Amino acid sequence: MSSIVIESGVLARIGAHVPRAHAYAVITDSNVAGLYGRRVAGSLGNAELFEFAAGEANKSRETWMTLTDALLERGYGRDCCIVAVGGGVTCDLAGFVAATYLRGVPIVQVPTSLLAMIDAALGGKTGVDVAAGKNLVGAFHQPHCVVIDAGVLATLPAAELSNGLAEAIKHGAIADEEYLAWITDHADGVFERRTDMLEHLVQRSIAIKTQFVRDDEREAAQRAALNFGHTIGHALERLSGYAIQHGHAVALGMMMEAEIGTALGVTAAGTVQHIHRAVRAARLPHRIVFDDTGPTIAATRSDKKARGGAVRYVLLEKPGRVARSERGEWTWQVADDVVREALKQFSV
Amino acid sequence: MSSIVIESGVLARIGAHVPRAHAYAVITDSNVAGLYGRRVAGSLGNAELFEFAAGEANKSRETWMTLTDALLERGYGRDCCIVAVGGGVTCDLAGFVAATYLRGVPIVQVPTSLLAMIDAALGGKTGVDVAAGKNLVGAFHQPHCVVIDAGVLATLPAAELSNGLAEAIKHGAIADEEYLAWITDHADGVFERRTDMLEHLVQRSIAIKTQFVRDDEREAAQRAALNFGHTIGHALERLSGYAIQHGHAVALGMMMEAEIGTALGVTAAGTVQHIHRAVRAARLPHRIVFDDTGPTIAATRSDKKARGGAVRYVLLEKPGRVARSERGEWTWQVADDVVREALKQFSV
Repeated sequence: MSSIVIESGVLARIGAHVPRAHAYAVITDSNVAGLYGRRVAGSLGNAELFEFAAGEANKSRETWMTLTDALLERGYGRDCCIVAVGGGVTCDLAGFVAATYLRGVPIVQVPTSLLAMIDAALGGKTGVDVAAGKNLVGAFHQPHCVVIDAGVLATLPAAELSNGLAEAIKHGAIADEEYLAWITDHADGVFERRTDMLEHLVQRSIAIKTQFVRDDEREAAQRAALNFGHTIGHALERLSGYAIQHGHAVALGMMMEAEIGTALGVTAAGTVQHIHRAVRAARLPHRIVFDDTGPTIAATRSDKKARGGAVRYVLLEKPGRVARSERGEWTWQVADDVVREALKQFSV
Repeated sequence: MSSIVIESGVLARIGAHVPRAHAYAVITDSNVAGLYGRRVAGSLGNAELFEFAAGEANKSRETWMTLTDALLERGYGRDCCIVAVGGGVTCDLAGFVAATYLRGVPIVQVPTSLLAMIDAALGGKTGVDVAAGKNLVGAFHQPHCVVIDAGVLATLPAAELSNGLAEAIKHGAIADEEYLAWITDHADGVFERRTDMLEHLVQRSIAIKTQFVRDDEREAAQRAALNFGHTIGHALERLSGYAIQHGHAVALGMMMEAEIGTALGVTAAGTVQHIHRAVRAARLPHRIVFDDTGPTIAATRSDKKARGGAVRYVLLEKPGRVARSERGEWTWQVADDVVREALKQFSV
């Protein structure tokens, strides 16, 4: 695992946390360039800024090609270091550039959104989206270091805090019932951007995520638990053409997947309600309109966890604990009918 | 390291050497599809053939995208296995597809050219070419298994045998003086496709390559020795728009880089002549026309071994042994003037 630095004001002192390199390529998007990208590049010697247009639609193989060619054009060699400054899109995209540039160069992740701090920047998953689905092309490439300045969350829009909170709720749901309750009780403080609460949130979520990743970087076993809420979540996101935001989709996905577990007798009664309360507190949606659940179920089939053509779900035993199958597996095969019923439970 | 199976007639029994998978995607080019691709696909259960147009020009990000999208379209999941059947282009390209498809799926390499058997299929380097140079985009991804049927070399054109022999000469030059002499003495037998000689060639070259890769998969140290002849070789290839074949470029590159070492007093007298004799025996070119050596020197700068903007060369101590620098490094920085003189030595 990479080292993780959580330190207020660290962006101005980032030189202390990057590896020695002949040159630094700071990759950032058009929203973050002016806020933090130029500042980070300015605080590093021999650094250039590589900017791409903000938005999930640009987390594509085309943007990856453009960034790669720009680095080649500027003569970056294997002794360079890439520094990603931005949200989840930037972390994933710049990570895939680093994973494949000259067969791999070091990267330092500098996440500037809550979602990226507690999720995308950690664990070495990199990738881009394709028409068939999100993150279907990518590689595992651990960052040299993840540098987090929770102070930047002071300027993050409330909607982005909600997006991050969805992943924090997931961390509570799969690993820590107390943390799940803490989020429910303290979400208002997070929206008021109380420093102590933001820092607790970042630290606790990172601790849980790294615990699942540490011994399973390539997701052969327990790392799969981090996909709770994401099998349905990704399908909803994709079907909406990414009009539904990631955190919103995951919030709905978590409730629906908790409902699936309840219907199968795997998940304890009351679990859905626990998650529901947290989702409400995080100002995330808890209902969705379905004309027909068929397309959503079809969309889950391109999930990367699918095996033998069958979709696999992470199910909870209760809040704070993932259910393991009789064979000890971290994911479960679920019949379409059960999924359909769960989708309907949360539709209007 | 992956397991390597060298067995006459093994293509018909390939099922014994692939990992269990839900489905197999056999990737091959338009030249090899009819010769071996369909035969391999036919001998595996639940396999489909994915064919691309033959030629180095198609070892591109565009072909990689097309193959990836075709696999997604056909619903291949993480429980699939890719089987690459073909020469170096297919091994590198299909390897990069496998490295990045759903963040990595297993691959079995089935090289059908001498060059691919003793080089591209081994060691886990995957990649594609871009305008700025060869293999500048890629990833390390070790194959599950490499399956070699030296019998297929009976149908390989003589020019392709020459291409493969260039890498075999390199193996002798960096690791085994006796092997270098053996190639010089037995090249005619190889061109007559004498089974015993082809098998010795494949086995000895694989043994040397794997010895250099084993403890240094990511080329931090001794694996760099395998780049002997390639710094100049890649530059010649690229400047010619790939009209000069890889083996031809490497043959010229080896002689020129041996000459560089001689000029610097690093390489023993007579080394250039040893390599020259082997190159002649392998029916490879030993002279090239330069109008101006400047573009070749400029083209070496995009070499992946470049550090701090300076090009690094692998130099020999004598035939069969690589010279280490005083600091123990496997590559040397060389002044442009020395490179220019070496290029001129082999120009007409």
